[in-house]
Amino acid sequence: MMTNASAVPRITGTTRLFSVLGDPVTQVRSPMLINPMFVRLGIDAVLVPVHVAPEHLAEVCAGLKRIGNLDGMFITVPHKVAVCGLADRMSPAVEIAGSANVMRRESDGSWYADNFDGVGFVEGLVSTGNSPVGKRVLLVGAGGAGAAIAAALLAAGVSELSIHDRDTATLDALLRRLGSRWRVGVRGLAAPDTGAVDIAVNATPLGLRPEDPLPFAPHGLPPGCVVADIVMKPRETPLLAAAAALGYRVHHGSHMLDHQLDCYRRFFRLGEIRTGPT
Amino acid sequence: MMTNASAVPRITGTTRLFSVLGDPVTQVRSPMLINPMFVRLGIDAVLVPVHVAPEHLAEVCAGLKRIGNLDGMFITVPHKVAVCGLADRMSPAVEIAGSANVMRRESDGSWYADNFDGVGFVEGLVSTGNSPVGKRVLLVGAGGAGAAIAAALLAAGVSELSIHDRDTATLDALLRRLGSRWRVGVRGLAAPDTGAVDIAVNATPLGLRPEDPLPFAPHGLPPGCVVADIVMKPRETPLLAAAAALGYRVHHGSHMLDHQLDCYRRFFRLGEIRTGPT
Repeated sequence: MMTNASAVPRITGTTRLFSVLGDPVTQVRSPMLINPMFVRLGIDAVLVPVHVAPEHLAEVCAGLKRIGNLDGMFITVPHKVAVCGLADRMSPAVEIAGSANVMRRESDGSWYADNFDGVGFVEGLVSTGNSPVGKRVLLVGAGGAGAAIAAALLAAGVSELSIHDRDTATLDALLRRLGSRWRVGVRGLAAPDTGAVDIAVNATPLGLRPEDPLPFAPHGLPPGCVVADIVMKPRETPLLAAAAALGYRVHHGSHMLDHQLDCYRRFFRLGEIRTGPT
Repeated sequence: MMTNASAVPRITGTTRLFSVLGDPVTQVRSPMLINPMFVRLGIDAVLVPVHVAPEHLAEVCAGLKRIGNLDGMFITVPHKVAVCGLADRMSPAVEIAGSANVMRRESDGSWYADNFDGVGFVEGLVSTGNSPVGKRVLLVGAGGAGAAIAAALLAAGVSELSIHDRDTATLDALLRRLGSRWRVGVRGLAAPDTGAVDIAVNATPLGLRPEDPLPFAPHGLPPGCVVADIVMKPRETPLLAAAAALGYRVHHGSHMLDHQLDCYRRFFRLGEIRTGPT
């Protein structure tokens, strides 16, 4: 799907609202992807960034849900897990992952949560020639995005999935949820093990801030390994820079979001793309 | 101040938010005035319409106040009175009028309310050659906008101000607040009296919906009387159409908002207009 970053919606009193909730929120790319999509589809709507601290998430969400012309929300770090408790219903993907990245208002006024992080990440890998099917994957980060990616990698058919998270309670909870559906191929790691891996994935927010430590040290990875990051800003995270310097193939964070656009369009029932003059 | 309605802000993760709250909200013109001003000033901010029903105003306001990148709110019908109870502090104009049309976040995190409807309306009259100084004014509507306009007309120096509102409790409360500051020249009317009037003003929302009755019948007004409306959409309200057909001069609702732009810019500390290439 082509995007035209210079296309911006004209906002009037009839404009419908979408919000993307995060903390921080300055790094989000979704407004630059979704707003040109609205223009392209001829939809009178706009997506705006909403900075909300974790301690205010419930209050902000309650207020946003009561806005009559707000049709949906995108959810990013660190709210993807907590927001599940604020939805009225959720998709199987959310139940397995324990995290959501979109919510929409249903016709009965209730709010329905879904998660396209995992699907978007896997489709991004496939599109760059790094299909995870049959591969051994190391996943660091079992939070909102990591959980969604873990479920999608297993659904796609990886041969082995090793997951590490500094927070052992978070890791154990994810392993239990995954284990109820997939009996083989998943194991938890007390520390990242880079010895026998085809694809190594950072699904933590580490790299978003310049002072962050690396989520894992890439130098022990086998030759030919793909190092993937979900952090989108900066594009060249310290992890990807270190991996590239060591000769590994790198997979940027932007792919995950790029491959979610069509999912969002369908989820928010934004209609088919209109062809013809714009 | 020139406006360029085609200038629309480009929204990214760093964009600051402003909202305009109303019920309905589809008729608001502020996004088309304020957003081009942001672009002209080189400010990374956007104003979006927020549709909120009266029973949800407190909950929506509480949520909006917790949004870290939301710096201010515009308030329109029917929330201008109720929102005063949701501000931490308010200007003298708000105290007298009992209504607010803007709120901003202060550096200490508190919310400060002000009201520029009255000032904007009076400046609009002056700009079209209809200065209210020394004039007899009939004002119909003692709600949020009407109260602000009443206070500004008295401050400007009208000779007589007669106010009617179907809701006698609202009218009496406004008369008490005005009476504490202005000892002469204000009276309440049980019905609109069009006999001895230089300027007749509709400050009710009547005219916003096609099925609304006229706020007052213009045919008894003296020749040469100015009939003013604060309803902005439709531009030619049934009241103004009837008045024009009878040969009266009419004053459109848009003037009130047009003359508030500079007030808003100062209130929200948006800096001076940058000159030079845009």
